Order: sequence, then structure tokens, then C-alpha cells
Amino acid sequence: MRLSRYFLPVLKENPSEAQIVSHRYMLRAGMIKQSAAGIYSWLPLGFKVLKKIEGIVHDEQIRAGHIPMQMPTMQSADLWRESGRYEAYGQEMLRMKDRHDRDMLFTPTAEELITDIFRSHVNSYKDLPLTMYQIQWKFRDEIRPRFGVMRGREFYMKDGYNFDLTKEDALHAYNRHLVSYLRTYERMGLQAIPMRADGGPIGGDYTHEFLVLADTGESEVFYDSAVTDLTFGDREIDYDSVEQCQGVLEEFTSKYARTDETHDAALFDEIPEERRRVARGIEVGQIFYFGTKYSEAMGANVQGPDGKQSPVHMGSHGIGVSRLLGAIIEASHDDKGIIWPEGVTPFHCGIVNLKQGDDEADAACEALYQALTAAGLEPLYDDRKERAGGKFATMDLIGLPWRITVGPRGLKNGVVELTSRRSGESEELSPEAAVQKIIEIYAKHPSSRGF
Amino acid sequence: MRLSRYFLPVLKENPSEAQIVSHRYMLRAGMIKQSAAGIYSWLPLGFKVLKKIEGIVHDEQIRAGHIPMQMPTMQSADLWRESGRYEAYGQEMLRMKDRHDRDMLFTPTAEELITDIFRSHVNSYKDLPLTMYQIQWKFRDEIRPRFGVMRGREFYMKDGYNFDLTKEDALHAYNRHLVSYLRTYERMGLQAIPMRADGGPIGGDYTHEFLVLADTGESEVFYDSAVTDLTFGDREIDYDSVEQCQGVLEEFTSKYARTDETHDAALFDEIPEERRRVARGIEVGQIFYFGTKYSEAMGANVQGPDGKQSPVHMGSHGIGVSRLLGAIIEASHDDKGIIWPEGVTPFHCGIVNLKQGDDEADAACEALYQALTAAGLEPLYDDRKERAGGKFATMDLIGLPWRITVGPRGLKNGVVELTSRRSGESEELSPEAAVQKIIEIYAKHPSSRGF
Repeated sequence: MRLSRYFLPVLKENPSEAQIVSHRYMLRAGMIKQSAAGIYSWLPLGFKVLKKIEGIVHDEQIRAGHIPMQMPTMQSADLWRESGRYEAYGQEMLRMKDRHDRDMLFTPTAEELITDIFRSHVNSYKDLPLTMYQIQWKFRDEIRPRFGVMRGREFYMKDGYNFDLTKEDALHAYNRHLVSYLRTYERMGLQAIPMRADGGPIGGDYTHEFLVLADTGESEVFYDSAVTDLTFGDREIDYDSVEQCQGVLEEFTSKYARTDETHDAALFDEIPEERRRVARGIEVGQIFYFGTKYSEAMGANVQGPDGKQSPVHMGSHGIGVSRLLGAIIEASHDDKGIIWPEGVTPFHCGIVNLKQGDDEADAACEALYQALTAAGLEPLYDDRKERAGGKFATMDLIGLPWRITVGPRGLKNGVVELTSRRSGESEELSPEAAVQKIIEIYAKHPSSRGF
Repeated sequence: MRLSRYFLPVLKENPSEAQIVSHRYMLRAGMIKQSAAGIYSWLPLGFKVLKKIEGIVHDEQIRAGHIPMQMPTMQSADLWRESGRYEAYGQEMLRMKDRHDRDMLFTPTAEELITDIFRSHVNSYKDLPLTMYQIQWKFRDEIRPRFGVMRGREFYMKDGYNFDLTKEDALHAYNRHLVSYLRTYERMGLQAIPMRADGGPIGGDYTHEFLVLADTGESEVFYDSAVTDLTFGDREIDYDSVEQCQGVLEEFTSKYARTDETHDAALFDEIPEERRRVARGIEVGQIFYFGTKYSEAMGANVQGPDGKQSPVHMGSHGIGVSRLLGAIIEASHDDKGIIWPEGVTPFHCGIVNLKQGDDEADAACEALYQALTAAGLEPLYDDRKERAGGKFATMDLIGLPWRITVGPRGLKNGVVELTSRRSGESEELSPEAAVQKIIEIYAKHPSSRGF
């Protein structure tokens, strides 16, 4: 993309309404624009990151054997009356009547609807296990939306639902989700720690939240510092293997790590003092096993191998897709702007032309642009007639992890400058070597394969 | 995908509520499930096609230089009061109040919101031309939703908006949209004819609808049969070239083609009688130039090169993404089921194992599956222990354009059978040759590159 043809309305001033850094930078970098309290438009740069994150979530869910589909945002109230949640949900549910005076709602979550789909089509254990998920807009009418996309009213969420014959099978689905979530967050450059959580209004005995450590987190968290040494890395996993998935769960949940909701001071005190940590965290996902809560209420039964009918065992598993943009920025920024991890960056690298209009500099930038594009990468070429300082400030603010700077002086020596946004370090390289290095970097961060 | 692990709830019986073939086949092929009147869940197979269509729309919009972004589904009524459409829109607009008693609505279209984004950030001709678009869920509270996704209440739509300094520039944007739409529909295997249309409630002097000819279309159309000989094909186009885009417009709109809304009997009678056609069509897109209608009402002005402020010239351009599934099926089916064009098929080919459990047949199917997957294709392998007849019926119903049939008898001779869903013709080939042929077919139908 050539910046002269893009829509990137960066702001010079800090917007007064933004209290936390991610909100501030998302507004300043022209990623979002508020249209009503807690409701945002995703401007082109923000939309690109949102889609990168969505792509990674899809990849990892599909890899785990979970099946993508999509449910509508508008639902009839009837299903929610079956489960008893229509009245229970309270004012956070946005309700309305259609032109025929029927009660409708904007779905905040979809246990009822997916259970209805299941009971309409599945009635035998032979069709199990089954896990389906969607990534769809949700609405929660927060009384006080704030912190930008971190606590908005309209938000983008992945919600998945497993259906299994037995509790044991459902716990394997639970473990599969835990593993796939670990992979998902790591591909985004995030460390998200699974912490024992509270079931809340969805219910459930088995539930973990995934928290990203950040000073601006809404939750107080207590953990054994050994937990932050764990990484999933690029190990192979067979998602069908009960043992392997259980092993990962045990590895990642064996250390103490809890939010204030489930914190147990006595257990915490058993951790060696030098490893005890109290910090804040941002919740970016949650997995639940809640057994037969919805299947019993809604009559979602399956016939077992013994011919007997029993309610199906279920769980639901969420990732806050739009909220992740905020979480990633909270975890990865400096005083100049955002620092995108390679896995989610909207453009793979920036190209800054120090002397737009200079034939040689223009030609060199153009050649870099073509070479990177031909390699399947997407550069953002700042081809505007602006001062170098302004171009650097924009690149730093929007946080592309790599920048190639091209100027007449370097070109005389046959070099351009490759700069890491994260370390700030630069090296001089031939244009070909710079392209090669960018290609090598992104070979480790494959794009989402999509559908 | 292995069918034993997929969720494909096909129906044997014709659902009584479905009056047209696309609705019937989408229900029978397990693509959609109604959750409320005119509101559908997209089951896995339907979701895959929806995403293929979405991907093609994105590809072609990005190719034309249009910038993707996304606006929220929920909007405040305030902006719609500025344009005067809040009261004017009538009962098709789904309205509600949030917990703070503010008037909200589920957006049926987004001229107001995009104009608000524009006026907040752009005030000079130097930032023009600018075209942004989104693909987002919309809601229209139809009094009598029917025909499945063809006239649903919640629907998925591409809506794009151009901003230009002059009418002349805006008409170039209009022409760019016409060209990109021709390419879009052709990639989906559709012939969609641009027909002179009526401005309707959005207004506008320049507007064309794109109609797919089908007996079940809601519009009566009148055209010169010569228009159906036109194809865009794989010609190159420079979207920056005013002349090239204008040339395509003229080529594709020079022949008489109108809906009943704009039909002119006298003009129609000038066509040689043997070329006069009266038929029915399904509207799958519409482009508008409406000048300064919204920019004047909402104060979206830009400074021109002469220093003077003037309201920006705009247009809006829509493609009915979810409706396209219905239109494609109406245009491409037989009495056994759907026939997907290669560009949008949910799986590239089916693999039918005639003797599941037979070591040799299983191994051959597995090898085909691996070879196709390794080539970046997605086969659907029917690995269930079902009768061959049932497997064929399912494959025919869901409409994959190519099927490889594997059985012990053929394998003894070293062959499998490759069958075209469209022609019904089969040929015997070695498994390697069958894979190679599938690869060659899809080389002409590249996947959407996504973001």
C-alpha cells in the first residue's frame, strides 16, 4: 500500500477521552473512531489488524478440529426463555421489538442458539464429538463503556461450543481448547496465562481465564513466577490424543495462577516467596465446561451406544478478538507508539523515502515495494512529500515492526537502512539483502490460510 | 475435511416452507438453518461458501484501489436525524433504546456514518480520491421475509462509498465500481447484467443494478439479447485510467437492459425483434452516484485547489453477499441439487470411497486426500460407512463440481473415476492424473488472497 492512497488519519494530539495507552494509540494511529459510547468504526489500519487476529484464531481452531460456522446477531427471545436467561441476563442485554412486536435481542453469547441447532440435527453419539465455533459481533450494553475496544459495547468475539457424550469426552474438548488458545496467543506475540476462574453467570465447574499481564488490566492476579517461563513453542500436538492435551493442561495449570475471584491466600503462601507475584491482567479468553446445564434445560439429548438417551455434555470457549488489539498494545508499546508483533502487524514493513521526488530514491523505493510484494508481503510505502521526521513519527506511532529507510546518501553507497521498531537498532544493507531479511523474518510468521 | 468429522446435516425431504429452489437446496444441503423469520444461522457448509464469496468481493475491491474497513452494526439515531432519514426510513429500520434510553438502530446501510468519518478527518482535495468499503451484517425488518437468504432480514452486504472533489471524478469512481463488479460476478461463475435502475430512497441520477437472469427473480427485465454475449474475461484493466473504465461502462451499458422500473417500451421496440427478451432477474448489486446529497446535509466539505470549500461528491455501491448464495444456486442447479461454480465451491472436490473399510480403497482415498491437500486444495472425503448410492446423492446435493470415486474394481486396473457435476461425464484416470487434473482446473480459479 502506498500511503498517499491510503486512509490513515493519524492524530498529533492525545485524545482527552482516552485513559489508557491502547485506547490512546488506537485513536492516534487512525485505527478506530468512536461512533457512539462503546461503539467503534474500524478504520482501515485497525480493520487490518482485526482481520489478522481473526485469521490466527480461525487457523488454530481449524487445526484443533473445530468447525467454523456463523450465527446471526439478532435472535428471538424465545430460545432465551427456554434456558431461563432472558429474564436473568439483566440490562446488559440489548432488547428490542421487531415490527410484528416480537421480542428480539442482540446476542451477547450463543449457548441457546447453538444448542437449538444441535438438538434439531443430532441425536446419536455416532455424530460426536462435535465442536463448532463462530467469530461474530456481540453486544453487551455496558453501563459505563470505557478503555476503547477493551470494554466496548459492540465487540468481536470467537465463541466455540463443544458437544460430547460424556464428561470425560467434554473435558478432552476443554483441554483441546486450552492447547489451541495457547498456540493462538503465542502466534500473536502474547503471553496469556491460563488462570483458574469463576464460573459466573454461564456457570461451570471447570473454567480457566487467559490473562495477559499488563499494568492496566482490570483484574488483580496472583501467580507463581515460574508460570511465565512456560511457552508452548512450536511443539507438535495431536489434538486427538487425550494424553497429550491433558499433559499440556497439567503443565500450564500446575503452577499457582489465579485472579482475585478465586485467589486462595493460604495456597499462595506455599509458593517460595521470591516467586510470588501480584500484578494486573487483561482477560483475553475463557474456557468453560458446564456439563448438561443447557442440554437439560433445552432437551438436547443423544442416544448412547447402550441405546439410552442422555443430555449432551457441553462447554463454551471464548476469545475476545476485538479486545485483543487493546491487549496486544497494552503489552507491546513505547512512548512513541505501538510495537506490533510480527504475527499481527497490519503491514509487514514500512518503506520511508527520505527524498520523495528524487529519481534515484523513488526508483529504489519502488523496487523494494515490488520485491516485497512479489514475495507475498505487504509493505506500507510512505510516498508522501513530507519531512523525514514526520514520516518516522508516523511509522513509530503505527508500530510496523520493520522499517526500510531509503535516502540519496545511502544509495550512493548502495545501501538502505533496516530498522527494528522493537530494539530501535538499524543496519545498513543492500536493498536485496534487506528484502531477503524481511522475507526470512516473516517465514516464521505465516499468514493465516483463511478458508 | 473428512465427512465423518464434519457437521453436514443434510435433509432427505423437501422442507415445506421453501418455495424456491435455492432456499430448498440450502436447507437440504445443511447450509443454513432458520432461527427466526428471515434470520439464519450459517451452518458449516453455508459459511464456507459465504466466505468464498466474501473473499472474491474483497479481492476485487482491493484490486480496484478501494480500501476495506468496518463500521458497527449498531448506530446512534443522531446521525440519521442529520440526514433526515431517521423518520423517513419507516418500519424496515430496526430501532431500539439502549439502557440509557438513547435511540439506537441496526444499520440497514451506512451513508451517514461513513460521511461522518469522512468529515471528521478529511478536509482537502489532496486526500481525494477516496473509496472505502465494508462487508458487514445489515438488518432490514422486511414485513414478509421469504425465499431464504434471498430476502432475509439479517443479511451480509458489501457497501462501498466514494468521495471525490468533482462530479467527473465521482463518475470515474462509479465506473471503477462497475468494472470491479463485472469481474466479481464472473469469478463467481455468474453473468450479472448491469441494468439502468431507479434511484429509490437513496436517491441518485446515475445508478445501475446488476441482475442475474433466473426464472425466480423478483424483477421483470427487458433486454437486448446481445447483452448476454458480453463477458469481461481476463482482460487487463488499469483502474486509474478514466478512459479504460469509461470504455467498459459504455460497452456493457450500450445495449438495452432495464428493469420494469425504468423500462421504456418505445426504446425496447427499436431492438430487432429476434433480440428482444423479457425475463426475470435477481438483483445482486447496485451502484449509485448521488452527488452532494449527504455531504450537503451533513457538512462534509473539502477545500479545492482554488482554496474554496465545496461539498464532496459521493456515491454508494452495494453487493448482496449473502443473497449471492441464493442467486448462484438459482442460476446453477439441477434436480439432484446444487452445482457450484469452481470459484465459490465450498470444497474443491469430493472423494467417494465405494468400500469404506477395504484396506486398498481406504489407502487410495487417503493418498488422494493427502495429495490434494498438499497442493493447497480442500477435498471433502466421504469416509462414512454408507451405501454408494447415499454417498453419491449427498455429493450431488451439496454440488461440489468434481468428484473422485474410488473402488476396489477400478483400483485393480490402477484407476479412479473423475466426474464432472455439471456435465455428469466421467473418465477413468490414474489417481495421480486425477489429482493433476483437479490442480489444473483450480489454477484458473485462484483462492482469495485475503488480507
